[in-house]
Amino acid sequence: MALEQIAEVVQNGKILEAIEDEFNGVIVEVNEPMDPKLFHSKLKTSVSHWRQQGKKGVWIKLPIKLVSLVEPAVNEGFWYHHAEPTYIMLVYWIPKSGNTIPANATHRVSIGAFVMNQKREVLVVKEKIGKTLKGMWKFPTGTADEGEDVCDAAVREVKEETGIDTEFVEILSFKQSHKALFGKSEIFFVCILRPKSFDIQIQELEIEAAMWMPLEEYITQKYVQSNEFMKDITEKYKEKVDLDEVHTEFSIIKKKFTQNFLLSLRALVSSLK
Amino acid sequence: MALEQIAEVVQNGKILEAIEDEFNGVIVEVNEPMDPKLFHSKLKTSVSHWRQQGKKGVWIKLPIKLVSLVEPAVNEGFWYHHAEPTYIMLVYWIPKSGNTIPANATHRVSIGAFVMNQKREVLVVKEKIGKTLKGMWKFPTGTADEGEDVCDAAVREVKEETGIDTEFVEILSFKQSHKALFGKSEIFFVCILRPKSFDIQIQELEIEAAMWMPLEEYITQKYVQSNEFMKDITEKYKEKVDLDEVHTEFSIIKKKFTQNFLLSLRALVSSLK
Repeated sequence: MALEQIAEVVQNGKILEAIEDEFNGVIVEVNEPMDPKLFHSKLKTSVSHWRQQGKKGVWIKLPIKLVSLVEPAVNEGFWYHHAEPTYIMLVYWIPKSGNTIPANATHRVSIGAFVMNQKREVLVVKEKIGKTLKGMWKFPTGTADEGEDVCDAAVREVKEETGIDTEFVEILSFKQSHKALFGKSEIFFVCILRPKSFDIQIQELEIEAAMWMPLEEYITQKYVQSNEFMKDITEKYKEKVDLDEVHTEFSIIKKKFTQNFLLSLRALVSSLK
Repeated sequence: MALEQIAEVVQNGKILEAIEDEFNGVIVEVNEPMDPKLFHSKLKTSVSHWRQQGKKGVWIKLPIKLVSLVEPAVNEGFWYHHAEPTYIMLVYWIPKSGNTIPANATHRVSIGAFVMNQKREVLVVKEKIGKTLKGMWKFPTGTADEGEDVCDAAVREVKEETGIDTEFVEILSFKQSHKALFGKSEIFFVCILRPKSFDIQIQELEIEAAMWMPLEEYITQKYVQSNEFMKDITEKYKEKVDLDEVHTEFSIIKKKFTQNFLLSLRALVSSLK
């Protein structure tokens, strides 16, 4: 079918407006209200038209205000791909061969932060909510926002929870876990930050208490010693502190960068199994 | 309200069945068909009931076959939290204070793989689809599945694209990027793998060609030299190869683990800005 003909059909309103993607698929974005029955009928005609054209994936993005169009799309064979607070994305695969539709985001990225002052005390908090670590003295943790670098997330979370200003220094380690919140996977980065202020002001909604705790006291806590990953990273952190690698200037750390650049995940992975 | 009374209301069918979560919220999971109007009416009564109880977040999980219940929930003030092919999760926040509802997965995790044979040749492919790297000789890349470790994803992708069996050795580097597919963030891990077989068999759906290419030829390619990250990691890889660190035995690499464990993200991040 020539391009003019396609345009004509669209103009006559039989086919939904769509743009092509680089994988021979089409993307329909509906923004104006439409009668659900009319939408269903148009969608049926459109899919048949795209099938003739040899198209593969068909995407429909519907803002939440057009929720009434979700049911007709599902009844036409579409399924949910992903949803965000303001819209839902539905998808359909035309060919009979297995679909190559990319999955939505699969991981959450979280951070934990070692912050130490000149007295060899680390910044620790007690959380109010959740069950696992409630009441434990632990380093500040949090989740990276969509679009946020790991190092910025660590600085932000420490500031939010404790009021302490910090600078990102380096990543000490990371850990993978699966089947976490909503069944998703998670990568947890443990960061080293350097404090730029020392007066603690806690965020009262989520944090019960915060303090500077001597590193040796932190290490000997029962929950640190009984958790292989926590014990391992804490000892590695202490090793770095003892070597005075943490409080050196950035320029020096940057010079060390090439030597420290390589990270073997193998031992980490096997330590988790 | 006493527990018996709650049970009674639920038994009378006025309130939707719900389980409590550890953050003082409730989770409703509907699995049997229900008239959309009846569902709307019950939902209204239920939310009012949970408000009196001081509940916070309200979650509704609906399988795709119950798509007709999505619209009444949205009309009652619920919004989309996330969706997977088989279900949609809706959410509502009762208190007037700002909501602390956790975000869904924000990141995709992808991998690139350096695989070198005894002749100092690296495994490269040319992709059929996509635009960015089509026609370039590049190392195999791919996306980690939900629930899959980075090292397993690298081994799987190399096998799928080229037929080569490998063992994971270590992570050479990683890179963060944002606003990628569906607006999500991405962490790209560059892995070093050791080949266990050498006969290439390409996956014809996505791969146009694959070959073993001399490392020096790989490095001098224009696209490698013009991309700061590619150039940087390729040179670091070559450095390791020259030091004969890659083909040593696992036990030795594991011993080196403590020295190589630390990774500074700073230079990486600043090289990307």
